[in-house]
Amino acid sequence: MNYQLTPIAHIETDFPTKFGVPRQSGLVKGLKGRIVFEPDYREPEALRGLEGFSHIWLLWDFSEARKTFSFRPTVRPPRLGGNRRVGVFATRSPFRPNNIGLSSVRILSIDLHTSDGPVIEVEGADLMDGTPIFDIKPYLPFTDCHPDAWGSLTPDLSPADEARTVRFSDELLSAYDAEHIDALRQVLLSDPRPHYHDDEERVYGFEFAGREVKFRMAKDVVEAWIEHT
Amino acid sequence: MNYQLTPIAHIETDFPTKFGVPRQSGLVKGLKGRIVFEPDYREPEALRGLEGFSHIWLLWDFSEARKTFSFRPTVRPPRLGGNRRVGVFATRSPFRPNNIGLSSVRILSIDLHTSDGPVIEVEGADLMDGTPIFDIKPYLPFTDCHPDAWGSLTPDLSPADEARTVRFSDELLSAYDAEHIDALRQVLLSDPRPHYHDDEERVYGFEFAGREVKFRMAKDVVEAWIEHT
Repeated sequence: MNYQLTPIAHIETDFPTKFGVPRQSGLVKGLKGRIVFEPDYREPEALRGLEGFSHIWLLWDFSEARKTFSFRPTVRPPRLGGNRRVGVFATRSPFRPNNIGLSSVRILSIDLHTSDGPVIEVEGADLMDGTPIFDIKPYLPFTDCHPDAWGSLTPDLSPADEARTVRFSDELLSAYDAEHIDALRQVLLSDPRPHYHDDEERVYGFEFAGREVKFRMAKDVVEAWIEHT
Repeated sequence: MNYQLTPIAHIETDFPTKFGVPRQSGLVKGLKGRIVFEPDYREPEALRGLEGFSHIWLLWDFSEARKTFSFRPTVRPPRLGGNRRVGVFATRSPFRPNNIGLSSVRILSIDLHTSDGPVIEVEGADLMDGTPIFDIKPYLPFTDCHPDAWGSLTPDLSPADEARTVRFSDELLSAYDAEHIDALRQVLLSDPRPHYHDDEERVYGFEFAGREVKFRMAKDVVEAWIEHT
């Protein structure tokens, strides 16, 4: 059997590397992405009727976790401290036998005729810039939303921790628009540091919307500024 | 890039052919399926922690809609009468560039040590018996359930139409247990006939849980019996 996938599109986001990317979709409000179809699939007709839906599913490639040849039944999720083993099918880890990611995102707009062909603008994507997309499906509330469902990966895989304050430098504040500032605040409050780092002096950096953001994380405050380039 | 998928499991259901299979997951309550892992993935450890979740996602192969070589941007969903064209990315049609199905099902039980290896028993699967499964992910309510989402494929893609009555033959009633009878009632009420068939005399048949069920569908009543074999 040939189970070969072909990317139909890719997404453009503000994160050129995986550092800073929200750990699940929808966690950071206001974070926008642009779904651009590959040349063979630039067909406005393929989106006919999509305006009747608020959300879509993206099936995408975990680009940074290319398939390895041996099956590893357990993973150590960073959010569990990195030392507790959990079955791979009980997590959303990228390191799984078939590296397909699943994310639901909100549709902001559909523009059928851009210079890049049809483009879907979405909110809430937890995807790196350039991630290949294999499928787009409408979100069907009656079958996809289970208000009675329970279970969570970790206690802290929840929206941003509001106990900390974010302090932006003036330069950073003038470099981004209000929407990016707001998204960046949520990204920082969700603690994008690698697991079990707890060094208040340590400076981290990641690229966000074309600039290098630096930050230092203390107990009550996150200080963030822009790296001079 | 190699985007080759490998089935990790398959599902055992009561439907050896696609006739009768619910059109979306969760529509028919009580319909059970058994997820059996392929020999290379029979590893109880891979499910460690899954007992902390009520539902899972299945990513599976639309076996009957093998990839064709040309991209068809629109489909004609049977539930829209079969004559209205809709963009493929605005439907859950199997006839899409990458034939991956997405279904959420409820976990009924997890048995790590059967003679078939670990087995997950689930409720609500809209899958044919033997369907290959590529991935199993926990359903995360906080990111997967959007109570504010809107949109539907068709007006009648909803739980079973309660306006009809189902009349089972005595023989049928004694051939199945109560659970199967109840599931069968829902399957029949959801009108499994091919689109735009409206012939009250016509007899349809499909295989269900090892027997051939026949039915005839009038305006107010569905008559169902078992084919003598």
